[in-house]
Amino acid sequence: MKNLLSMEHLTTEEINQILDLAQAFENGETSSLSRRYNVANLFFEPSTRTKTSFEMAEYKIGCNIIPFDAGFSSVTKGETMYDTVKTLEMIGIDAVVIRASEDEYYNDLLEGLHVAVINAGDGAGQHPSQSLLDLYTIKKEFGYFEGLTVTIVGDISHSRVAKSNATALQNLGANVHFLCPEEWSGGFEAHHSWDNLIEISDVIMLLRVQHERHKENCSFSKESYHQKFGLTIERERQMKDSAIIMHPAPVNRDVEIASELVECERSRIFEQVRNGVYTRMAIMETILKGRE
Amino acid sequence: MKNLLSMEHLTTEEINQILDLAQAFENGETSSLSRRYNVANLFFEPSTRTKTSFEMAEYKIGCNIIPFDAGFSSVTKGETMYDTVKTLEMIGIDAVVIRASEDEYYNDLLEGLHVAVINAGDGAGQHPSQSLLDLYTIKKEFGYFEGLTVTIVGDISHSRVAKSNATALQNLGANVHFLCPEEWSGGFEAHHSWDNLIEISDVIMLLRVQHERHKENCSFSKESYHQKFGLTIERERQMKDSAIIMHPAPVNRDVEIASELVECERSRIFEQVRNGVYTRMAIMETILKGRE
Amino acid sequence: MKNLLSMEHLTTEEINQILDLAQAFENGETSSLSRRYNVANLFFEPSTRTKTSFEMAEYKIGCNIIPFDAGFSSVTKGETMYDTVKTLEMIGIDAVVIRASEDEYYNDLLEGLHVAVINAGDGAGQHPSQSLLDLYTIKKEFGYFEGLTVTIVGDISHSRVAKSNATALQNLGANVHFLCPEEWSGGFEAHHSWDNLIEISDVIMLLRVQHERHKENCSFSKESYHQKFGLTIERERQMKDSAIIMHPAPVNRDVEIASELVECERSRIFEQVRNGVYTRMAIMETILKGRE
Repeated sequence: MKNLLSMEHLTTEEINQILDLAQAFENGETSSLSRRYNVANLFFEPSTRTKTSFEMAEYKIGCNIIPFDAGFSSVTKGETMYDTVKTLEMIGIDAVVIRASEDEYYNDLLEGLHVAVINAGDGAGQHPSQSLLDLYTIKKEFGYFEGLTVTIVGDISHSRVAKSNATALQNLGANVHFLCPEEWSGGFEAHHSWDNLIEISDVIMLLRVQHERHKENCSFSKESYHQKFGLTIERERQMKDSAIIMHPAPVNRDVEIASELVECERSRIFEQVRNGVYTRMAIMETILKGRE
Repeated sequence: MKNLLSMEHLTTEEINQILDLAQAFENGETSSLSRRYNVANLFFEPSTRTKTSFEMAEYKIGCNIIPFDAGFSSVTKGETMYDTVKTLEMIGIDAVVIRASEDEYYNDLLEGLHVAVINAGDGAGQHPSQSLLDLYTIKKEFGYFEGLTVTIVGDISHSRVAKSNATALQNLGANVHFLCPEEWSGGFEAHHSWDNLIEISDVIMLLRVQHERHKENCSFSKESYHQKFGLTIERERQMKDSAIIMHPAPVNRDVEIASELVECERSRIFEQVRNGVYTRMAIMETILKGRE
Repeated sequence: MKNLLSMEHLTTEEINQILDLAQAFENGETSSLSRRYNVANLFFEPSTRTKTSFEMAEYKIGCNIIPFDAGFSSVTKGETMYDTVKTLEMIGIDAVVIRASEDEYYNDLLEGLHVAVINAGDGAGQHPSQSLLDLYTIKKEFGYFEGLTVTIVGDISHSRVAKSNATALQNLGANVHFLCPEEWSGGFEAHHSWDNLIEISDVIMLLRVQHERHKENCSFSKESYHQKFGLTIERERQMKDSAIIMHPAPVNRDVEIASELVECERSRIFEQVRNGVYTRMAIMETILKGRE
């Protein structure tokens, strides 16, 4: 595994190896890398948890983090992504973690570079480290994927997370349902009302309503979204005893989920954040190990 | 001491312990923390000296600093302060240092969090680490507070520093006078001309004129402020032999103080910056120690 | 050598010492500094390679980098450069690396400061660490400067690099030619067409066309610049066998140089980036060593 660009590039075996290594790190195992690697995190879009999570993970496996201020870089002078990344390679960076707004920006980085590239989100495309931490959260909870019913709720058309997760979960044997307003199904087959989804789901995976992207063409208010598609207090009561709630965050409280439920017993929302560090340690370790 | 939010929460004993520890650090003592703690500095308003000073202090007591770019974080997507800080806690951060523009933003952080919170300035409220470094500067100079006359000059109504310092100095036995234009007294009893304050003061503590906050309703020019309320060369000549000048900086030269006086013999303005590092080492060490 | 402000302040002996030390570092020598120094990088203008290159160099010689976010500092509140740098000195910073838009900003930093100042670019003035890495690149290639023919192509009037390099190269014995549109010669004697420059040059040093600075008064398009002054594929074919291509980057592909040539065999464009780290290690080591 030279890079991590899209969940679609990962085999089930590779996924399981990363999840196992994440578990080992959570159990206290330490990095077995042979030296301090130099990494840079190129975040061209705002992010708290993904960037900080990668930095903590990189620190924990002994990397040296070279600061990179994307908003203040030569990219603002029109430099191409390839030239920026090649420059970092020549400076001595071993791996770059990138978030950018263009779908599949990484296609320009596949040739001519020796540096490893980890995709931390490409436009409306993939967000594989988030998918892997979601999978890790589910596996920790249930121990298996086969036969689990997972309902993904929200803007499927613009969600990196939905696409990555759906592909992976189905490959691992889970049943995946989508629930969203009609205009957000983006070509996927989806439910447009809860019906009996709440009672049959083992995992309710809520997606963030991206107000940034929907300012104009939105036919409903926050309140009506919450009533129709949100996880209300009433709906939570109808969930299976063993079922859990997930959300990649940041949460819009009282839109995707009632504010009181964010830290309820079956919520794994903040636990996902904790799991993200172990998952990203596993991703970085696996990729850097492959260079030794 | 779990957090440091407001000078009003500190007992005189706690203040003295921090000042003593700051002195010990200045004398060469090193941290006795048992491990490398992870800290993040969340500055939602511009700052050079406070942020850099905390970072140097954190470095000197062996912390690991996880970068956090406030201007580029999920807060810009509407995430609440609680959710942001909880996220950092789950990522493994032990303490957060926060500057934000809302008064008492920290009231939302008092419940549900295990991470330590250090307030580095809340709107027009408190700025306790600045108060403590001011106290440390005075104690180093005079050895005591009892009976000292301290005159605080400037915008009392919008100054975090004035409020924190006045409370603490009075508790420690100092006599505090305020001097300011009438419209800036903010409910405090204040002088509106220098009268004999210059001759009786042991400490003249100048506050920054915050042009940012006064664009509209300001009845005087920079020049006239300097003439009426500034520390001019003439006024400095009338100060007691042993008296000192303080300013939290950044200084507006020739407004609060004549430019030639910024580094004069009795100025402690840059010395305060040096003292700030030792004071913040003491603050962070005390709070992190309390977690062991 | 207390500071590094301008190539004009360096003797030929000092230049050669830095180039030799850079070579030693490239050969694997490690820093001989006696302690971890604290440095801050103040970049008031965007930069990828210079800032990251300094940070990597600082890291490699064992410095502690205190983060400084120029766009979010007290300078935005009107603090002078002197007061900002003095503040960093009092906080315990040993050396500051500064890029700023004002020509010779460093003249305000010559008195009253003990901190070392390294100029990483001042407006349209000097950029000595870039000049030194260019010299290092040439010396590594040819082993000497005496008698080499170097053609510098581009906006001489606004280029820090051109001015620094021309002075130094001539002092070291090279023949320097300038090639540029008439309106960009900035008082220097320059060619305005390639003539036989392509055949006689050992080094073609291309400068970046700074569209940022030329929006208005530009009498030619990108395409016509490339045809008249750019290094086209045809021109590259006429170069001497041993001749090399240099560019400080970021490159405007198909303006200064045909995109296909950026990584051609005789291009040293990315090699310059690699050389920059060793050169900056040598600069920082020399200056910090001088403080011991």
